Amino acid sequence: MTFTDAPAFIHPLRIYWEDTDAGGVVFYANYLKFFERARTEWLRSLGFQQERMRTEGGAMFVVADTRVRYLSPARLDDLIEVSVRVVESGRASLRLVQEARRGGQALAEGEIRIGCVDTGTFKPRRIPNDILDAIA
Amino acid sequence: MTFTDAPAFIHPLRIYWEDTDAGGVVFYANYLKFFERARTEWLRSLGFQQERMRTEGGAMFVVADTRVRYLSPARLDDLIEVSVRVVESGRASLRLVQEARRGGQALAEGEIRIGCVDTGTFKPRRIPNDILDAIA
Amino acid sequence: MTFTDAPAFIHPLRIYWEDTDAGGVVFYANYLKFFERARTEWLRSLGFQQERMRTEGGAMFVVADTRVRYLSPARLDDLIEVSVRVVESGRASLRLVQEARRGGQALAEGEIRIGCVDTGTFKPRRIPNDILDAIA
Amino acid sequence: MTFTDAPAFIHPLRIYWEDTDAGGVVFYANYLKFFERARTEWLRSLGFQQERMRTEGGAMFVVADTRVRYLSPARLDDLIEVSVRVVESGRASLRLVQEARRGGQALAEGEIRIGCVDTGTFKPRRIPNDILDAIA
Repeated sequence: MTFTDAPAFIHPLRIYWEDTDAGGVVFYANYLKFFERARTEWLRSLGFQQERMRTEGGAMFVVADTRVRYLSPARLDDLIEVSVRVVESGRASLRLVQEARRGGQALAEGEIRIGCVDTGTFKPRRIPNDILDAIA
Repeated sequence: MTFTDAPAFIHPLRIYWEDTDAGGVVFYANYLKFFERARTEWLRSLGFQQERMRTEGGAMFVVADTRVRYLSPARLDDLIEVSVRVVESGRASLRLVQEARRGGQALAEGEIRIGCVDTGTFKPRRIPNDILDAIA
Repeated sequence: MTFTDAPAFIHPLRIYWEDTDAGGVVFYANYLKFFERARTEWLRSLGFQQERMRTEGGAMFVVADTRVRYLSPARLDDLIEVSVRVVESGRASLRLVQEARRGGQALAEGEIRIGCVDTGTFKPRRIPNDILDAIA
Repeated sequence: MTFTDAPAFIHPLRIYWEDTDAGGVVFYANYLKFFERARTEWLRSLGFQQERMRTEGGAMFVVADTRVRYLSPARLDDLIEVSVRVVESGRASLRLVQEARRGGQALAEGEIRIGCVDTGTFKPRRIPNDILDAIA
């Protein structure tokens, strides 16, 4: 299934000292963390908690592929918004487009592929049906 | 000046994958980050932004001493509350007591001493008067 | 200029608690840190230190684009090797291919584009000639 | 048992971009990571690997208490040395003194208490005998 015009979920977050580096701006690798936080809150907004999924369901999402373009630097105290939009969903993996913005300005944009695995073996497994249903 | 019964500022935050380690719980060093986020929001609640203070005022707070006791593990998806209470304020440094709690349970408690320095030389300087006034 | 068969620079590093997450393996975002460490050591091996470049030369490298595929999980105590290979160099940016391996097994592979900017304005500028000469 | 003059184990490490913050120096919370890396290498030097201890022995060390004084800032590209010295060892916990230095200069000094717990229940348990024997 492919989603072209799905509305994006938005997660706001603040930039703290821990997020910056000696260049005076946000350390680029941290955008992967920001994207992850937004995906976690998006799943929570759909009724899913990953800790329960991991400990009770024996399943967890793992990140398979990330592509990020860093467009403009963010700084300490900035309030930014991170979006989540599913662009493709299969039985064992999802492809998402995410963006970090501050007001009208794009800071970073990413394309993230996540898969579902068994927590013990790390072997791919079907994404739980209730999650697939909630996304569709 | 010593504050014994000052009410605490409270900052809530969520635990994400980035905060955990292979033990399955929050990596202890991250409580220093959580305490820092709470102090930043506490300063913001008083009207102060550290990025402006750094770039326009040429001053920044640095952490001089941290003591943290780790009492109970937090986990992915937990919503925790971090408190800030000033227990001593001098002209160039503050001593704060901070606590991380999940519901009624104490997760970590810290005693943090921060000082004010010149951004160029890192030499100690007076905490800006308006901040001292706001705290008192 | 395009480099197809340039030998790779190799940087070994150890996995610590801080690198892992509750899945029991290395948190994927950290591979960007590992790739960065390897690039820093590669520049050092060519005679360049980024702190001097930043404070004395007023220039710094920034990461413009990262693409990473996560192939196999690494764990606490693993000793891994991270490679750096320049695949394209222009006057203001470089494209590098990097890989993280443990013994014969590929853990993650990345394609990273970095640019050179002025430390004050973040405007693109030419990569210092001595660095370009050393890479060529 | 109390050790007063035990020789210190020394672990050297390099400061990378990921370790710094917008103040231009190492983010203070990262000294806890540096101390942890040094303790991990110290255990390894005695023949112990924590991943094996965790997955095969069902035991892991957890940090119970940290006290750190931050004395002088470190910067990108600095090569620092982190020491480990056991100052007290009980059946279920150890107290260590650790220091980060750059050449002759002390950067940070810490006092860390670690305990041993069961990986499933997080209940305190005896430190494995072979580790206690190796330390004594």
